[in-house]
Amino acid sequence: VTEAEQAVCEVNRRFYEALAALDVEQMDAVWLQEDWVECVHPGRELLTGWLEVRKSWEGIFANTRRMQVEVSSVLVRIEGTVAWIACTERVTSLFESGFDEALVQATNVFLLRDGVWKMVAHHASPLLGPSRAVLQ
Amino acid sequence: VTEAEQAVCEVNRRFYEALAALDVEQMDAVWLQEDWVECVHPGRELLTGWLEVRKSWEGIFANTRRMQVEVSSVLVRIEGTVAWIACTERVTSLFESGFDEALVQATNVFLLRDGVWKMVAHHASPLLGPSRAVLQ
Repeated sequence: VTEAEQAVCEVNRRFYEALAALDVEQMDAVWLQEDWVECVHPGRELLTGWLEVRKSWEGIFANTRRMQVEVSSVLVRIEGTVAWIACTERVTSLFESGFDEALVQATNVFLLRDGVWKMVAHHASPLLGPSRAVLQ
Repeated sequence: VTEAEQAVCEVNRRFYEALAALDVEQMDAVWLQEDWVECVHPGRELLTGWLEVRKSWEGIFANTRRMQVEVSSVLVRIEGTVAWIACTERVTSLFESGFDEALVQATNVFLLRDGVWKMVAHHASPLLGPSRAVLQ
């Protein structure tokens, strides 16, 4: 593992810490705040631009009482000033009305800007869990 | 639109032509054939490595009689020798047993190798279509 890979994985970890903390200011620190960054939440349409992406996190955080996130199968790849990570998220969300457990496959893209890796794209998509897959 | 953006969009277009043609040899020409390339089909787990990715296309193509693909909302971004595209796919598949229409959000990553842009990651995830969203 190179130093650059460690640095990218550290930012990826901070992204999931922000998610689990339901903390939009931690999200501010992770994302590149430009009008072309991209975010796809599971089953939802593409959002573009930091303002729209930030608003979506605010909405998710406002509607969630607690969130637990376990990240596994992290694959990182770096080419020049761009890095991308594939990883699996097991997300348990507690709402007012109940809870939800989701298995999610994510692709996260990062750019190196002024010596710091920043998230520029997050694409998360629902996976069928093993128990549900068996029922098919 | 820069020349590089045009070149990346052209490879993206050829990827979807390969898909619609159910032609794995056209896929061979589009992808970088290395053991770390990544592919997530809608609702499925991450596949890594060209052999595994190619096998998945062969499986999909063997089980599909015809496929029609309409691509829209293409956003392209290039940084150095890496490019990524966000786009929406409307995929109509005809099987032995019937047909399926799916709206899909995709993130495609490309690398410039020896002057040619090659696909290195494809992440496709199901979107709720407008009609189904209304029913929620």
